[in-house]
Amino acid sequence: MILTVTLNTALDITYRVRSLRPHTSHRVTEVIERPGGKGLNVARVLAALGHEVTVTGFTGGATGRMVQDRLTAVPGLVDALVPVTDPTRRTIAVVDEQSGDTTQLNEPGPTVTPAEWSAFQEAYEDLVPSVSAVALCGSLPPGVPVGAYAGLIRTAKAAGVPVLLDTSGEALRRGVAARPDILKPNADELSELTGSHEPLRAAQDARRRGALAVVASLGTRGLLATTPEGRWRAAPPARVHGNPTGAGDSLVAGLLSGLVEQLPWPARLTRAVALSAATVLAPVAGEFDRAAYEELLEQVTVTGEVSAA
Amino acid sequence: MILTVTLNTALDITYRVRSLRPHTSHRVTEVIERPGGKGLNVARVLAALGHEVTVTGFTGGATGRMVQDRLTAVPGLVDALVPVTDPTRRTIAVVDEQSGDTTQLNEPGPTVTPAEWSAFQEAYEDLVPSVSAVALCGSLPPGVPVGAYAGLIRTAKAAGVPVLLDTSGEALRRGVAARPDILKPNADELSELTGSHEPLRAAQDARRRGALAVVASLGTRGLLATTPEGRWRAAPPARVHGNPTGAGDSLVAGLLSGLVEQLPWPARLTRAVALSAATVLAPVAGEFDRAAYEELLEQVTVTGEVSAA
Repeated sequence: MILTVTLNTALDITYRVRSLRPHTSHRVTEVIERPGGKGLNVARVLAALGHEVTVTGFTGGATGRMVQDRLTAVPGLVDALVPVTDPTRRTIAVVDEQSGDTTQLNEPGPTVTPAEWSAFQEAYEDLVPSVSAVALCGSLPPGVPVGAYAGLIRTAKAAGVPVLLDTSGEALRRGVAARPDILKPNADELSELTGSHEPLRAAQDARRRGALAVVASLGTRGLLATTPEGRWRAAPPARVHGNPTGAGDSLVAGLLSGLVEQLPWPARLTRAVALSAATVLAPVAGEFDRAAYEELLEQVTVTGEVSAA
Repeated sequence: MILTVTLNTALDITYRVRSLRPHTSHRVTEVIERPGGKGLNVARVLAALGHEVTVTGFTGGATGRMVQDRLTAVPGLVDALVPVTDPTRRTIAVVDEQSGDTTQLNEPGPTVTPAEWSAFQEAYEDLVPSVSAVALCGSLPPGVPVGAYAGLIRTAKAAGVPVLLDTSGEALRRGVAARPDILKPNADELSELTGSHEPLRAAQDARRRGALAVVASLGTRGLLATTPEGRWRAAPPARVHGNPTGAGDSLVAGLLSGLVEQLPWPARLTRAVALSAATVLAPVAGEFDRAAYEELLEQVTVTGEVSAA
């Protein structure tokens, strides 16, 4: 069982319109609703790969119930979300059919009270001892202390459970100091954390700040991993075109599934890159194309060196 | 008890953003949710005026439940919505704080099956005999026959209950032939129905097509009424500035409340114009400013002539 934590869950709504023109009225031609928030996306991909996953985080109001209804429909996925009074946020992606571009509207999310945050921490402490890995994903909703991830990482490590962190800004800065087993920043998050725009240098700096391993996603160029066992670059066979929504979450799912299956790093990275690219190629945002994934597994190139130490 | 019918109910969501720029990401700073659809708006204003109101129409899915939760919180309002399988639609109004302009995104609404339409007609037939007036408001969702309002008007008239119709396009054209007691078009709907852009001529034509009385809303210029008892124009004291959302629905509520209280036409029209202008002046879209309403009741001017016949 893998545990994913999504403190800022969402109902992700996609609207298609002919052409988005501000200050006019639009008829929406298609409405798609999916559970959202990075940890829920990771959980869905893990479940599709055949893993059992428990999801926790917060759920509130009618929108929270809509998210939970959709989660319970996913085989292999256990809902352990903790109730809050404020409603779960919606995100709306308005896809312009003429240009193909997307305009995003994100609600702020619930304000979590101190009592609700305490209730979550207790639920998390009860869940952690029985899982094989924890992923802490995404932004913090209002009311959750900025050092939240650092505390959750310490709880997991005290229980001997490996933990992956995928967040940004101050939550990332505070979290990395608590020594997560894997840090999964993108290039922007890594340079914001370290001040360096050179990915290898920045990843090494992130390890000095506390992360045991750093896997940096470099968009269409694949990823860069610096770990105690060695350093690698992994890349898809060719530039992949499509919708990058959810590609980072699929990458995290690939890393986690490889971790709990005790694959060596190059095999984990191959899986992560193949899943990520197969997500960009899928017609529905956030899903992955299984046939493309199977093919890409044979085509990803991994180059690097094993540590001498 | 007044009955309002809203076949295309909605959850009206208003988002405030700093500045709407297509193809970028926006943080929504404020989220407001209200039950929507013209008949529900009319019912809320009637309830605020102290009338007992039953609302019917369709409700579906989680969004329908959100609408119903908000309706049951309104004192004096009875929920008699009929369930459908498809979800109730959302409408999203994105208010740009810099320009003050609004961009509208409207979901298409549920597709109503023939069995659901039959179930609604039966529920409506059961409700009509015990009410003092019926208002049929707004557009028809997919699946409801275009002659729907004509049938509902005939049912009300057969029960001796007066009926007001406020719709547009083909539903209006078909409805007017069934001889509603009051037709409430705006200037555009009236000219689309009759082909005339001259409001008095068009209103008279609409009466020839079947409407017993026509009350045409002329925006900031007030309204024009042609009835068996006489013809009148009613206008607010000065041009009213604000948000016109819901002003037409408040006008309908004023006409209906005056009808069931058996007020003479000039008093009904005064109330309708005062409510409509007090809605434009209210800070929240669709609400009316009660103090402004009381003041406006003394200031609306009605000019016209009683019929010789």
